[in-house]
Amino acid sequence: MKHIIKVGIVGYGNLGKGVEFSIKQNDDIKLTAIFTRRDPKSLVVADKDIKVLSISEAEKYKNDIDVLILCGGSATDLPVQGPQFAKMFNTVDSFDTHAKIPEYFESVNEAAKSNGNVSIISVGWDPGLFSMNRLLSESILPDGKGYTFWGRGVSQGHSDAIRRIEGVKGAVQYTIPIENALEKVRAGEAPELSTREKHLRDCYVVAEEGADKDKIEKEIKEMPNYFSDYDTNVTFITEEELKATHSEMPHGGFVIRSGKTGEENKHNQIIEFSLKLDSNPELTGSVLVAYARAIYRLSQEGATGAKTVFDIPLAYLSPKTGEELRKQLL
Amino acid sequence: MKHIIKVGIVGYGNLGKGVEFSIKQNDDIKLTAIFTRRDPKSLVVADKDIKVLSISEAEKYKNDIDVLILCGGSATDLPVQGPQFAKMFNTVDSFDTHAKIPEYFESVNEAAKSNGNVSIISVGWDPGLFSMNRLLSESILPDGKGYTFWGRGVSQGHSDAIRRIEGVKGAVQYTIPIENALEKVRAGEAPELSTREKHLRDCYVVAEEGADKDKIEKEIKEMPNYFSDYDTNVTFITEEELKATHSEMPHGGFVIRSGKTGEENKHNQIIEFSLKLDSNPELTGSVLVAYARAIYRLSQEGATGAKTVFDIPLAYLSPKTGEELRKQLL
Repeated sequence: MKHIIKVGIVGYGNLGKGVEFSIKQNDDIKLTAIFTRRDPKSLVVADKDIKVLSISEAEKYKNDIDVLILCGGSATDLPVQGPQFAKMFNTVDSFDTHAKIPEYFESVNEAAKSNGNVSIISVGWDPGLFSMNRLLSESILPDGKGYTFWGRGVSQGHSDAIRRIEGVKGAVQYTIPIENALEKVRAGEAPELSTREKHLRDCYVVAEEGADKDKIEKEIKEMPNYFSDYDTNVTFITEEELKATHSEMPHGGFVIRSGKTGEENKHNQIIEFSLKLDSNPELTGSVLVAYARAIYRLSQEGATGAKTVFDIPLAYLSPKTGEELRKQLL
Repeated sequence: MKHIIKVGIVGYGNLGKGVEFSIKQNDDIKLTAIFTRRDPKSLVVADKDIKVLSISEAEKYKNDIDVLILCGGSATDLPVQGPQFAKMFNTVDSFDTHAKIPEYFESVNEAAKSNGNVSIISVGWDPGLFSMNRLLSESILPDGKGYTFWGRGVSQGHSDAIRRIEGVKGAVQYTIPIENALEKVRAGEAPELSTREKHLRDCYVVAEEGADKDKIEKEIKEMPNYFSDYDTNVTFITEEELKATHSEMPHGGFVIRSGKTGEENKHNQIIEFSLKLDSNPELTGSVLVAYARAIYRLSQEGATGAKTVFDIPLAYLSPKTGEELRKQLL
């Protein structure tokens, strides 16, 4: 009989919910418990039969959980929880602070290895699926240029930055890739693109009553790092409109490599990977669950330490056998 | 010092040439020799310093070649050469008769394993990159529907079929994905598509002098398996035009998965991978070379037997170290 992989979730925000939904679509994976820092009784979970427990109780479930999926944030949660739980469990996380990945990798690797566990860090779509495609296309077309475009999608960081402006009651910011730049890349022109030429920032803002909208708009557009290097649209809307039209979390993007091959490098070759997501956290959650399957299998083979999506053969992601995969998908 | 991977090529058609060009773009890989069934002296190779030898001499180079890249055809060459060379060398090939992959895998696996070699079969873009994306997207979105579209590109098989018609002097057939079908899939409509709704067949034909063009056109359009299930355009052109406008080998295609996630499966998620290739054999050759690097590394680790693209971690394809990959590409 097939082993049912027992999974736990740490952190029940949008990502944790995405993981919970994804697990239901995979009949070889079962959710054992959700661990939270909040009062467990306060959590409304999609499946009422699931145990909701305090995060402090996680350790007791060491032997009942095959893989723990860490759904906390990268700023403050994961730098602590990653190494902490890698000492007790096989783990999967979506650590996405690109600049700090090497250091985070080392700390999780040390914790997992010295306790005989295996962990995969930085799973999701970027880092994650996008990274895989950057690596794959660069390896195939070394003589080329790679591009990553994000969007159309909600950037939580940019939305938060707007919300911190005086007189702003609510805001959602969409990052939008500029079609003209995409077309140039796809045409094999290998353009040099400035920040402004790649993405547009589209902001929907609810102002407090009596607030100076011109001042808010100016403050947004001139905000260094976040907006000043971009063309930015600001549209003021009502609170009702914000709720009705901008409460979903779509996202997506494009990884494109444009390379040259052959005699005198005369042939253009374009490799493109793209995502168009109605729900960013649900897709990310689905990727985490597929990698939980892989991590379970790796642990069964005795692997230890930290891994990334670069280290896992794709076959480990699928419930199908090698024979089935070769027959049906190769 | 870094080991330079020594590679041999068996078969010097379009694919063999593509492999030769690709090797030049990778400074950790060196071409040791090209083996051919033709008279070695008759071969005009891009790099005149490369040894060109009879295929019968390959065995003598067992200890001088790390990986042998088999560039023969899938119909008659590889079913013999795959197992034959897997007994003596680590090999990479692009066996692409989908229906016969399981049987071919077994024969190469047996030959490689019993001689301590490691081989990867069915490398390229379909099978190959497309297969990887089918597996990846199906594993992430189990509740969904996958599509593969090919083209716009030259189908050698269909071009040959036209050339066999009486009165035809030359022909090139392009497979073209139907834009409307692609748009429906990308919109998350998950349509059921008939053969005719997915691809169009566009034929450029040179007729012999005095040949009955209407009869040729009818014969093409009614040809079972090849054309009768498709909308087919037939355009008669001159021999000069065929040479001038239709002698390149462009190709490409799309692997798209449309899936649902979340509460009541209300969110559409689209994962798309696509290729737009000026030269089909050069891109295929570039993929084979990246996998030759992977196979060399696997062999250094003591792996034996047959593998597919599903079994190889992506990190093995890149000349970069794990640290570099995590820092630059994750």
